[in-house]
Amino acid sequence: MAMVKLEPPAQLGMSLGEAMFTQRAIRRLKPDPISDEDIQVLMDAASKAPNARNEHRGRFLVVRDREKIRKFAELYTEAWWAKQPEGWSPENAPPGDKHLGPMRLAGAMKDVPVVVLAVSTAPRYASSILPAAQNLMLAARALGIGSVLTTLHPCVTHRIHELFKLPPEAEVHCCIPLGYPEGRFGTTARLPTSETTFYDEWGNPPPWE
Amino acid sequence: MAMVKLEPPAQLGMSLGEAMFTQRAIRRLKPDPISDEDIQVLMDAASKAPNARNEHRGRFLVVRDREKIRKFAELYTEAWWAKQPEGWSPENAPPGDKHLGPMRLAGAMKDVPVVVLAVSTAPRYASSILPAAQNLMLAARALGIGSVLTTLHPCVTHRIHELFKLPPEAEVHCCIPLGYPEGRFGTTARLPTSETTFYDEWGNPPPWE
Repeated sequence: MAMVKLEPPAQLGMSLGEAMFTQRAIRRLKPDPISDEDIQVLMDAASKAPNARNEHRGRFLVVRDREKIRKFAELYTEAWWAKQPEGWSPENAPPGDKHLGPMRLAGAMKDVPVVVLAVSTAPRYASSILPAAQNLMLAARALGIGSVLTTLHPCVTHRIHELFKLPPEAEVHCCIPLGYPEGRFGTTARLPTSETTFYDEWGNPPPWE
Repeated sequence: MAMVKLEPPAQLGMSLGEAMFTQRAIRRLKPDPISDEDIQVLMDAASKAPNARNEHRGRFLVVRDREKIRKFAELYTEAWWAKQPEGWSPENAPPGDKHLGPMRLAGAMKDVPVVVLAVSTAPRYASSILPAAQNLMLAARALGIGSVLTTLHPCVTHRIHELFKLPPEAEVHCCIPLGYPEGRFGTTARLPTSETTFYDEWGNPPPWE
């Protein structure tokens, strides 16, 4: 297949700063459908991210079939619980506990309009597909579509492969539910970059506060 | 350390579409320095990407010390050759061979003004640092700074840890040289997304060509 060069789509006119600084995990998603035209914009944006030697090891599997999403949601929920600390339950969690939002997402997954799986055609190659997943989520933000990056516990890998007929050598790097947000986009809280950036060697602070 | 909420910096006013669709691997970099102010913009942009449970497992190590870059370049070159197919050499490579550009980068690495290592504070966690690396590279594009995502062969891992005093549990996910480009930004050639996107199960094409 011949390669193509694409022009930026008009839908991605939001400034880079606004898209990045108002991206946040959106876990409460309306069931309203997302058009194929919008999904194509997301995929085109994803395709422009770097990938090793331009060998195109990344694939996106766009799931909209209701029955497949229902089965995916069961596996996702099982995988979510497998990742929780022993003894954790919503009854003993303090208010604001950071597991509660993801737990609700696990419960709501069956109703999301779209789930996208970011897959590589061979093991490893995270750096050829996760930058593309970030492009996809930034483009979704520009289109007013909410997203959240989730990962699966290995306990469901085999059944996910069966459900979506993935070849054995394929690896799922993340799963991204998409939908129009129930809430608002808005800024995220982060550690200051003076705490997460080092200069020249580990532990050396950068020249800003 | 308290978390912060940041406003988008004025320097990131380029449209999302232009930034994404004109990002390309820039391997010919001028030695001109990059200001700390610009590096801070890149780090702030990176910090806004998703990360698992907002636990901040990602760190960026910004290397500008000339002696450290020289030593890094030696290790990078050794690692680059370790990744090449047996018997490959520039003398027997056909014109346009896709290894030639990266080979030149390995030779030029000692002269780049900045190398950024994207690191997680524990193994795995690729999905908590590679989306941030993509934000960093998109922000660099908006600032007119060239970048290229590179990875290291495991044969140099131990010496990279020693050189930068990385803790044993840290993992380097990619290395990004930065510099003002000798050439131009401009669009990349990619497989059409009708070839790299599937609907509902592996192999099912999407509804566009």
